[in-house]
Amino acid sequence: MALGNNVLVGQSGGPTAAINASLAGVVGAARAAGLHTVGMRYGIQGLLDGRTVNLDEHVASPAQLELLSHTPSSYLGSCRYKLPDPSTDETTYRTLFKRFSEFGACAVLYIGGNDSMDTIAKLSRYGEAIGSKIRFVGVPKTIDNDLILTDHTPGYGSAAKFIAATVDELACDADVYDLKSVTFVEIMGRDAGWLAASAALAGEAGGHAPDLVLLPEVPLDEQDLLQRLAELIAEKNTVVVAVSEGVRTADGTLICERAGSTARVDAFGHAAALSGTSRYLADVAHRELGCKTRAVELCTTQRCAAHLASQTDLTEASGLGARGVNAALDGASGVMSALTRVSDAPYEVRYELVDVNRVANAVKAVPAEMIREDGMGVTETYLRYARPLIAGEPSLSFVGGVPAHVALLA
Amino acid sequence: MALGNNVLVGQSGGPTAAINASLAGVVGAARAAGLHTVGMRYGIQGLLDGRTVNLDEHVASPAQLELLSHTPSSYLGSCRYKLPDPSTDETTYRTLFKRFSEFGACAVLYIGGNDSMDTIAKLSRYGEAIGSKIRFVGVPKTIDNDLILTDHTPGYGSAAKFIAATVDELACDADVYDLKSVTFVEIMGRDAGWLAASAALAGEAGGHAPDLVLLPEVPLDEQDLLQRLAELIAEKNTVVVAVSEGVRTADGTLICERAGSTARVDAFGHAAALSGTSRYLADVAHRELGCKTRAVELCTTQRCAAHLASQTDLTEASGLGARGVNAALDGASGVMSALTRVSDAPYEVRYELVDVNRVANAVKAVPAEMIREDGMGVTETYLRYARPLIAGEPSLSFVGGVPAHVALLA
Repeated sequence: MALGNNVLVGQSGGPTAAINASLAGVVGAARAAGLHTVGMRYGIQGLLDGRTVNLDEHVASPAQLELLSHTPSSYLGSCRYKLPDPSTDETTYRTLFKRFSEFGACAVLYIGGNDSMDTIAKLSRYGEAIGSKIRFVGVPKTIDNDLILTDHTPGYGSAAKFIAATVDELACDADVYDLKSVTFVEIMGRDAGWLAASAALAGEAGGHAPDLVLLPEVPLDEQDLLQRLAELIAEKNTVVVAVSEGVRTADGTLICERAGSTARVDAFGHAAALSGTSRYLADVAHRELGCKTRAVELCTTQRCAAHLASQTDLTEASGLGARGVNAALDGASGVMSALTRVSDAPYEVRYELVDVNRVANAVKAVPAEMIREDGMGVTETYLRYARPLIAGEPSLSFVGGVPAHVALLA
Repeated sequence: MALGNNVLVGQSGGPTAAINASLAGVVGAARAAGLHTVGMRYGIQGLLDGRTVNLDEHVASPAQLELLSHTPSSYLGSCRYKLPDPSTDETTYRTLFKRFSEFGACAVLYIGGNDSMDTIAKLSRYGEAIGSKIRFVGVPKTIDNDLILTDHTPGYGSAAKFIAATVDELACDADVYDLKSVTFVEIMGRDAGWLAASAALAGEAGGHAPDLVLLPEVPLDEQDLLQRLAELIAEKNTVVVAVSEGVRTADGTLICERAGSTARVDAFGHAAALSGTSRYLADVAHRELGCKTRAVELCTTQRCAAHLASQTDLTEASGLGARGVNAALDGASGVMSALTRVSDAPYEVRYELVDVNRVANAVKAVPAEMIREDGMGVTETYLRYARPLIAGEPSLSFVGGVPAHVALLA
């Protein structure tokens, strides 16, 4: 069957403040190549039901494309759908490839995290097996920054910028009364501590870096923590702790499980919607140290705060979307567009392609050299790595006092 | 005793994103009049111990004064100290007036909410009784917007802008999967629903206004709410409810008390640090409606998000600080600087003086004409009132990717 001249694009997994910039990058590159772009509504899952939108129509002008880049959430909608193993269930694949043909796809781009790369890996392998000419390319995205084979992941820089600015503001706020207090700020990241680590950037503009940063990579000993907090609170009024929702004790128990939260599990077997870590630690610290404690959960604000996105992040997100399209047009399949860092200062990255099969389902934790020796903070190596990622502020248009964005699809 | 030529200024109560702009307004106006400014550390409570800072030294240049306006939290530190009745305990007043003399005060400015106006009212009455020439002037501040005799209160516009932008982002984020969900966004406001109401501004830029807004002014009937949610969720995928932390049932029980939270009481007898309302409602809705629910607490971020302050708010906060100083220099005492609205569009306000005795301890609730007939939303009258308050974005300087501000005092 002849290839169509449409790029089919989907978004998958949790949204980020930069995922629509990647979509804009895909649409822009496809247009530049004279191709049309069709969006999957709710990812692969929606496509199975034939749910698509014509992006040439919905995001027609360059001005709308620019506004799309500043739109929070996933414009196309998302799913957390795991493709079956083709050897046990081929039906789904047959349906999908039928859809690809129906929508005239020459290339399928999927913007997502490691689960989405699993989808691209499976589709490209199946496509190759049946002799399809359609190209399958992954475009990385995740606030968690836990994809391997890329220096960092779009979405991380914007979340990190929001976290850094907010932790600084919260630290200032916590310091307002003349009393001893410990504030726990709970930050996303179920398996990797990259997001919690970014709280350390709060100190960059003469602001307040948190005193402690607790990462899932380091088992938490409650007694050690209390001891350290007692020392800190003896020295100063206001102690701030950034804590990852994924922090665990040495036996692997999530702190939020001790808090009585139910850690739900999604289709990929990942614990989803963790919460209660900061509340639990605040209660324990209040009981043991006798001082005022406060728990602040940044919740989903940290992944959708388009109003405080990193321009570096948006530029790279768009660039990786465009790189993905161009790779597909060059004949590549089973690849993910990725970033290789050339230098920290001046900051420079190269856009590359990597084997999506290697990325799928792997997780990149915060490495030891970025974790402070006491296990409760980050090192200058981390700060050097992270600083450029939160640099730059997009020029946002405000309407009626709030940031403008494209209307989400009905 | 001769009057000194220092303006003594303090900040009291919870911080806002605009309270330091008022401080900058006070310092600027005092300087313009050739006076020095001495800041009380931790308000009246710190002053009792003689804790002050020389603001001529700490915030010396116009550039630093400008940066002070964009600094989150209360620069001078704050207290929640209630002055005793002078007829039963005069000692505190004697100490305070001794301090006023020691620090060469010709005027005492106190930036705060209705509790702080209680302080100014008592000091001015006592001062008059003992024949002191020192002027006592209040400068309004509270994110709660619940002060009477002023059209609105500095701090409210910035909190409202952050809430509106964030609720829009959260609503976009909630809409990402193809499933039914109800998101409860919990917003501050123990007695008045002004802050929760501001969530309705989320719809201004083509964004997503919440479907329901639950205010403390309207007793909540859980069955009515569930019925309304069932209707909404039958019509659409994503339902968003903005809920005030102060929402109560008809018998006056706080919803967060039903959630098992302990509502602590501060020195003024106010319930402080409420939380758990959104969690409770999300659990009830999940159980009764069977759909996905999510609870998001905006916590203290909403009062310290200087990065998304309203320029209108900052300008007025500064103007009210300056007006307070000039009133004192003109001989006024026992007054609060206040705003009278001249027109909604074009937006215009007049800076006035009002009797601080009337402001003290009173609370302005959201009036009936601003509440939707079903009691679960706001009217166009509210939107007309609130729109100008969130207008305008300050030009912030970013350093290292995060907003710059003056360093807090050690």
